[in-house]
Amino acid sequence: MAPVPAVVLLSGGLDSATTLAVARAGGFDCHALSFRYGQRHALELASAVAVATHLDAASHRIIDIDLRAFGGSALTADLPVPKDRDDAARAHGIPITYVPARNTIFLAYALGCAEVLGAADIFIGVNAVDYSGYPDCRPEFVAAFERVANLATRAAVEGRSTTIHAPLLAMGKAEIIARGLELGVDFGMTLSCYDPANDGAACGRCDACHLRLEGFRRLGRADPARYQPA
Amino acid sequence: MAPVPAVVLLSGGLDSATTLAVARAGGFDCHALSFRYGQRHALELASAVAVATHLDAASHRIIDIDLRAFGGSALTADLPVPKDRDDAARAHGIPITYVPARNTIFLAYALGCAEVLGAADIFIGVNAVDYSGYPDCRPEFVAAFERVANLATRAAVEGRSTTIHAPLLAMGKAEIIARGLELGVDFGMTLSCYDPANDGAACGRCDACHLRLEGFRRLGRADPARYQPA
Repeated sequence: MAPVPAVVLLSGGLDSATTLAVARAGGFDCHALSFRYGQRHALELASAVAVATHLDAASHRIIDIDLRAFGGSALTADLPVPKDRDDAARAHGIPITYVPARNTIFLAYALGCAEVLGAADIFIGVNAVDYSGYPDCRPEFVAAFERVANLATRAAVEGRSTTIHAPLLAMGKAEIIARGLELGVDFGMTLSCYDPANDGAACGRCDACHLRLEGFRRLGRADPARYQPA
Repeated sequence: MAPVPAVVLLSGGLDSATTLAVARAGGFDCHALSFRYGQRHALELASAVAVATHLDAASHRIIDIDLRAFGGSALTADLPVPKDRDDAARAHGIPITYVPARNTIFLAYALGCAEVLGAADIFIGVNAVDYSGYPDCRPEFVAAFERVANLATRAAVEGRSTTIHAPLLAMGKAEIIARGLELGVDFGMTLSCYDPANDGAACGRCDACHLRLEGFRRLGRADPARYQPA
């Protein structure tokens, strides 16, 4: 059987690494897509490169996009990343680390890439449980984008449909980690922190670090990532 | 009354110039958005800059995006632009000048820009009559993207809706030109050609030139654009 190509959005974090592993386990030839988007943690991209190789991606494209032209988010502008927030604080409202229209832009590029590769499948590692504050991580967003994908492209006109897979959508962080471990993901290669040190050590205190550490804690496993000394 | 901001996608061509004029006439403060996307006719951007000033845009952002990373289209790769095709040839299939997922990518950026500016209105100059070969110029595509916009953003979560305006959607080329002239658009500033000379003179022979010249002809008006000698 000829390999079936898929496009997989890969950030270098824990979720997208697990997503890539899920796509590989599903038998897809995975074309990974990462973005250099003016984020101050370009270290993330080094993780993405390592993860793509580790999980046997068929190709890995890194696309330059300039979200900084918009401003408006701690991940692209020079606002402080919030630290040591408790669950209650995280549960309220949209985090300032939200990047305007980010997943819409990433999926739009993935769609262009899928069209050129002749891929009918796109994988994205969003999950609605831990990140309910992000509007573009909700199931209805993914479904709406799939509808756009099925109208926007040459494939759509020619009657071939596109599926947006979001296999982690209903999973909590512990469940995602468990699934990744089951599939052989080396989470030591992944970087989730919003504010890592220059050497790539995670801060252990931002929302992403808290969620990740709590996930490993629930599983009774040690997080193999490097953290800055407390 | 405070000015109401809108984001207007502006290519430098005839359609988007008319769209900007329509948005201005509707009382919007127009923030124009153009893209440098590896297209070989960067001359288009010079037209966009001139048009933005001419039609009194409140701001004009030019965003670098690298569609060349995908290949697959005459407008970004090194394939020849088809010349001297008749209506029948143009009516069949998707033109090779189609860029994968282009309007999806452009609208995704517009959405990010609208979110940061607090704009609830996005204008795009697609029309389904002359360009029925482009899947992402159809009314159902615009409607589907509007649904994504109304799920993807902070505004959506907070109950503010976003409208994607495509005022030219049902117009033919002559009608678009007539509307633009009525609104004072100087079409001499616009560039529609897929394959202009280095000095910006239009070829007069590609699909875009044919449609444009035919539009002016139907109105009994001269096209003020510069064309290469036959």
